[in-house]
Parts: sequence; C-alpha cells; structure tokens
Amino acid sequence: MRLKNVRNSDEILFGNPDIVVTNGKEHRGKWASLFQKKQPIHIEVGMGKGRFVYEMAKANPDINFIGIEKMDNVIIKAVNKQKEDRVPNLMLLRFDAKDLIEVFEDDEIDRVYLNFSDPWPKARHEKRRLTYKTFLRSYERICKTKELCFKTDNRLLFEYSVMSLNNYGCDIEFITFDLHKLDMFNIMTEYEEKWSKRGYPIYKIDAILKGRKNNG
Amino acid sequence: MRLKNVRNSDEILFGNPDIVVTNGKEHRGKWASLFQKKQPIHIEVGMGKGRFVYEMAKANPDINFIGIEKMDNVIIKAVNKQKEDRVPNLMLLRFDAKDLIEVFEDDEIDRVYLNFSDPWPKARHEKRRLTYKTFLRSYERICKTKELCFKTDNRLLFEYSVMSLNNYGCDIEFITFDLHKLDMFNIMTEYEEKWSKRGYPIYKIDAILKGRKNNG
Repeated sequence: MRLKNVRNSDEILFGNPDIVVTNGKEHRGKWASLFQKKQPIHIEVGMGKGRFVYEMAKANPDINFIGIEKMDNVIIKAVNKQKEDRVPNLMLLRFDAKDLIEVFEDDEIDRVYLNFSDPWPKARHEKRRLTYKTFLRSYERICKTKELCFKTDNRLLFEYSVMSLNNYGCDIEFITFDLHKLDMFNIMTEYEEKWSKRGYPIYKIDAILKGRKNNG
Repeated sequence: MRLKNVRNSDEILFGNPDIVVTNGKEHRGKWASLFQKKQPIHIEVGMGKGRFVYEMAKANPDINFIGIEKMDNVIIKAVNKQKEDRVPNLMLLRFDAKDLIEVFEDDEIDRVYLNFSDPWPKARHEKRRLTYKTFLRSYERICKTKELCFKTDNRLLFEYSVMSLNNYGCDIEFITFDLHKLDMFNIMTEYEEKWSKRGYPIYKIDAILKGRKNNG
C-alpha cells in the first residue's frame, strides 16, 4: 500500500477521542465502557484503512469492534470514514500489535481478526509476522473464546501460519485455500478485492488457540 | 486411474512371494527378515503402480521400502516392474490400509508415505480418507519415528488433511502449497508428473504424529 502524507494528521488523530483512541493503555480492562452497548468485542489487528472492520461493524450491530493500526497515515483514512458516516459499534485504536496485552486485560475481547498482514518474507523478520508464536500467545491471553480468524493472499505467509498455529497448539475449525470459490459470507478488505479480482486465491483459516493450555 | 483386467493376475500375485507379500499378517513383527539388510523401513500406503516407492528404493539403498496396495490390477504393475529390474530393498504388500496394525507391530517401521491418495470427496466417505484420524492413529502406532510424509494435488483433500492432522495432534516439520516451485529433491509419482505438467500445484506436508501422547 502506498502511503501519502496527510495534512493535519495530528489534528485528526488526537482531535477525535470518541472515534480513535491514542492512549490505549489507559483503557485496559475498560473497553466495554467506550461503547453504547455491552456486547462481545472483536478486534482486527492491522486493519489498514479499515474497510473490513467498518463493514463488519455495520453488518453486525450486536458486536463491538475495535480496529487496530499503528501507522498514522493509514489509520487516518479510517478515522475520516467514521467522521463521515459513523458506525456506533466501532472504535479505532492507534497502537502497535506487539504490546496488545498492555491495552487489553486477559479475556477482555472475544475474537481476533488478522487480514492480509504484512508477510515479512525474510527469515530474520519471522518474529514480526502476526502469526508468530508470541503474537498467538497474546491473542490467546486477551481473547476469551480464543477465536482467531486469519485471511491472506500470501502463500508463504499462509504456509508459515498453518505451521505456526499447528505447532503453537490450536483446533482448526475451518480452512480453505480458495475462499472466493466458496459461497459464504465474506467481507472483503480493499486489498482482497483488488487481488482476488486478478485471480489470486485467498487463503483463510479459523482456529481456536489452545497453546497455553498445552504448554501448561 | 483406469484399470484394465490383467491376465494371469493370480499367477503374478501369488507366484512371486519374494517380490509381493499376500499373507501380510503372517509377517507381523518379522518384516526386517524379508530384506537383505537390517535397516530402517519406510512404507508407502496406497502405492498405486509403484513408481514412487520403486524410485525411492533405488535412490536410497540404505532404507528398506514396502509398497502397499490393495487393488490387484494395480499392484500387478509394480510386481512386473520388480520382476524386470529388481530393487533388493523393496517389497510389495497386497493389503488394505485400514488394517495396518494387523500386519505391523508397534514401532516396526520408520516412516509412512501417502501420495495422491483417493480424496473421497463426499462427506459420508470421510472415514475412508487416508488422513482420517483412525488411519493417523494406526500410522502412529506402527511407526517408531512418527514421521508422515503426504503429497497430493487435491486441494480439498489437502485442506481436510491439514485440519485432520492438526486436530489429531502433530508437529508440522514442512509444508508447501506448491512443491514444484521449490528446488528440492522430489521423486514424482506417475500421477504427479501428469498433473503438475498441466500446471496444477502439488501440496506437501511432513509431520510428526503425536496425537496418542496428547490424548493420553
């Protein structure tokens, strides 16, 4: 994704605390109170411009969503979208995924979505992949149901993730190597629409994390 | 694979006990004695016409191989091949994979290969797929190292197998969704050569089974 500098980015980011949270750690254990209704919370880690989480929130009013993104230039698009056409059960969070347990208490949320995460193809960057075991451990801690939903078009990242999830410990509830061949409900990210139109298969896995239990 | 009736099939099957074993149960616990050298035993379950196991045996003289196939019309091709150009570290076994523990003792062999197994696409035939949990359990029992190597071009069977292996309990040592894009040692089956030439990707997974340990 090409990033452009956005004017007044600080104003947009810090001037809309009802839309985007920039002091995530202060809300640890209290995320439910930011929403109108007390209901399950699903998060998307690395939401990019936020189309997926925005559409998911619109389609599922009985779930609260938090879209998480660390890059200012990207999250600002999602903030602007929310300013234009507000979805009440969606909050945005500017934060780095590597410190998730600092913004969420154990069991505070109910599902984790990862969509088209950066593949970090070099072996020396393995630890940055959002399906690396340290990330899986943090998702499992903060997520009550242990549900992880992961989509990508990147074959190498998917191969890696299947291996990482398996070796970490999980139940696989669903897996497909060609999501768009199936007739099922699927909200697409911007990226997904673009690449699937060009004929690239979309890989998806839904898993229940259970590594901590196995590892004692 | 189209099967033709082969003349004198009984003569070929039962007249070459040094090449093909038809009374497998009688050799339980004694397979090592059928080979010239005492060395690890690798088996291929559902070898078809046997090209893979034949070439593997030729390429790996320090391993004994057993190619297993239940269909007379198919195994006969492998018998004839062995009669023409004998590989000493290869035995053939006419047997149904569902009763493997009746022909092998616990820990009697050292690796299981599954190549292009019948996908049994209908849900009601799940139990016949060679990666169904009851098969995995038998491989784990008879196989000392718990090593399972699985290749297929069938996307649905591979998706199923990843899920089945994961949920059974295994370590994934290697996985690829496009084997022929990688520069690695790979002996092809007849089927594999045909379909990969037509551009179909070949899926492969190497796993260490550990379901029994997990399940107590």
